[in-house]
Amino acid sequence: MNFCKAAMELAFQAKGYTSPNPAVGAVVVKNSRIIGRGSTSPGGRPHAEYNAIINAGISLCRGALLYVTLEPCSHFGKTPPCTDIIKTAGIKKVIIAGKDPNPLAAAQTGRILKQAGITAEFSFPGEYAKKLQELNEDFFKYIITSEPFVSIKYAMTLEGKIALGNGDSRWISSPAARCYVHYLRRISDAVMTGAGTVRADNPRLDARYEIKKKPLRVIVARNPDFNRKNHVLSGSGPTLFIIPPGCAKFKKQADQYNKYYEEFPLDRGEFNFKKIFRVLAEKYNCISVLAEGGGYLLGSILTQRAADKLYAFIAPKLTGGGGIHPFSSAPEASAMAKASVLYNVQTETFENNVLFKGYFNKNDHLSKP
Amino acid sequence: MNFCKAAMELAFQAKGYTSPNPAVGAVVVKNSRIIGRGSTSPGGRPHAEYNAIINAGISLCRGALLYVTLEPCSHFGKTPPCTDIIKTAGIKKVIIAGKDPNPLAAAQTGRILKQAGITAEFSFPGEYAKKLQELNEDFFKYIITSEPFVSIKYAMTLEGKIALGNGDSRWISSPAARCYVHYLRRISDAVMTGAGTVRADNPRLDARYEIKKKPLRVIVARNPDFNRKNHVLSGSGPTLFIIPPGCAKFKKQADQYNKYYEEFPLDRGEFNFKKIFRVLAEKYNCISVLAEGGGYLLGSILTQRAADKLYAFIAPKLTGGGGIHPFSSAPEASAMAKASVLYNVQTETFENNVLFKGYFNKNDHLSKP
Repeated sequence: MNFCKAAMELAFQAKGYTSPNPAVGAVVVKNSRIIGRGSTSPGGRPHAEYNAIINAGISLCRGALLYVTLEPCSHFGKTPPCTDIIKTAGIKKVIIAGKDPNPLAAAQTGRILKQAGITAEFSFPGEYAKKLQELNEDFFKYIITSEPFVSIKYAMTLEGKIALGNGDSRWISSPAARCYVHYLRRISDAVMTGAGTVRADNPRLDARYEIKKKPLRVIVARNPDFNRKNHVLSGSGPTLFIIPPGCAKFKKQADQYNKYYEEFPLDRGEFNFKKIFRVLAEKYNCISVLAEGGGYLLGSILTQRAADKLYAFIAPKLTGGGGIHPFSSAPEASAMAKASVLYNVQTETFENNVLFKGYFNKNDHLSKP
Repeated sequence: MNFCKAAMELAFQAKGYTSPNPAVGAVVVKNSRIIGRGSTSPGGRPHAEYNAIINAGISLCRGALLYVTLEPCSHFGKTPPCTDIIKTAGIKKVIIAGKDPNPLAAAQTGRILKQAGITAEFSFPGEYAKKLQELNEDFFKYIITSEPFVSIKYAMTLEGKIALGNGDSRWISSPAARCYVHYLRRISDAVMTGAGTVRADNPRLDARYEIKKKPLRVIVARNPDFNRKNHVLSGSGPTLFIIPPGCAKFKKQADQYNKYYEEFPLDRGEFNFKKIFRVLAEKYNCISVLAEGGGYLLGSILTQRAADKLYAFIAPKLTGGGGIHPFSSAPEASAMAKASVLYNVQTETFENNVLFKGYFNKNDHLSKP
């Protein structure tokens, strides 16, 4: 149904700007026409329902339908509950895609709407509901665990190389695939990479086609040694360096460029990524992290069971020889039958590249801590 | 058009059994109904046109249409020319998918049909013509070069591993993907692998779901050291071992099991694969070879510019660690921008596996001899 689709598209447009709130879209429909549109405002407030009703004009909403991609809130947070404005506006029926992940809140919303004589229906087409569930999967994890949703992204050749032996990796994937990576960065609150990648590629780690969005760049540096040529240090946009205790010289340099740093102890040469991710959520409002190469960083995140999702781009290229492969620092499975199998795998093509999307199974050998 | 599709399907059914001839399908159509069907007979004779006309009954073909997937032959080979029986039967019009790869023969066929008052039309839908071109790509190469068409096939994890460090590779790909590999073996005249793979996996290298087809198994063995437990030596079906000169003990063993061998000199520890492939065509009637792992064999074939096509299956699995990658024995490109890019890439999914099909570019660094 087109109204469901219109609400969904508003949710997608808002994604990346609403953390730590979910991205929600809503439309007000009267006499089979959309009279108001809204999505979650930047920073998460006001909510989509409020924006859609105000956009329609509250006095025109009496007897209207409200299509909304996530169950309206019914509690006082930093905004009044959306159920209030829905009641005040005289909305007759609410058509919802996804349930509030908090069952108590969901029950309360249902009760409040019912008492006000407002019908609530979960009747978005299944395909849309699924896309919307994926869109806010970061929020659904965060709201339950207080941890960000962590995705790993890499591009590899048909030999599984993410870089040549000499470190060169530009470019493996096609322009369309790289454009999609910028979209992934837009919908992520933080983009993480290792110091080695910074030194080899000097990336900007920005969401190139989204001037409004500057994801937090998180550089994991066991040995923080950068210079002013490194965009993540000297360029504009926020950067957080994850460093071991000490590093006085580097800290001075970071202060000079107005970049953040957080000190974490190394345990047998490794950072504890679960702790790092928790701090990203608590102190930096990051509910989603996109980790991009290199081999060491990805292997550590995988080994520590700290990743939720994989985005692997495969390009129909060959370079021959050895080179750098993802996850090579993780311990190897003892048999192929014990390989970690991703679940809910989806594939998509970008020109002649294929993107594999899938979720990590946290109960297999690879992700045992 | 359904008649074109019917002819195409007959060609596909015949594929794998007609070498060194192409697989062709033909239907005779009268009053908009199919009255005869034929495809190239096993071993390549009689041809599809003959079989279709005989199947219809030659006396019923007067004024009929003939749909055929490859331009009929007009020369005396081991059979009389198909143009003869087309004329005798009184076929009015011939609808053809693909041109005879020999331009002189094509011109002659055109002339003969025209003189007999038979219209010839190349009007199969483009999509079918393309599939049929791919179906007989081995023949089209062979007829011009006298060399077989060589495809490389492997299955890899999302780290690009074709086996663990300990050699285990069972199974990387999904059952549906492995089923398709048996189809690839059916349409290949020879299936090639290395001695290491034989010792590690003890494969049967057969076309499991095609009891009528036993592709020639070709085992490349710089150091032929097998025992009676190895299916390729002791099992039924033909096997050819590629060995260096000498190896008296092995030759005795091969004779005992009625297996073939061919001696080729090693040049700096490497066989010359182009020479091997030429002998496969000349002495063993193989116009298509499917090379399946391991890393060394594939690297050598690639480096020697001897491969035409790649089939790479990618499974959404991870095992961590190092392991075995395809083409690792080939020299590495000096920059990612110099990677070899496959052309005419197609992708297909098999459950959650993706198959990349593409053609090797013979002018890039990797394939320089």
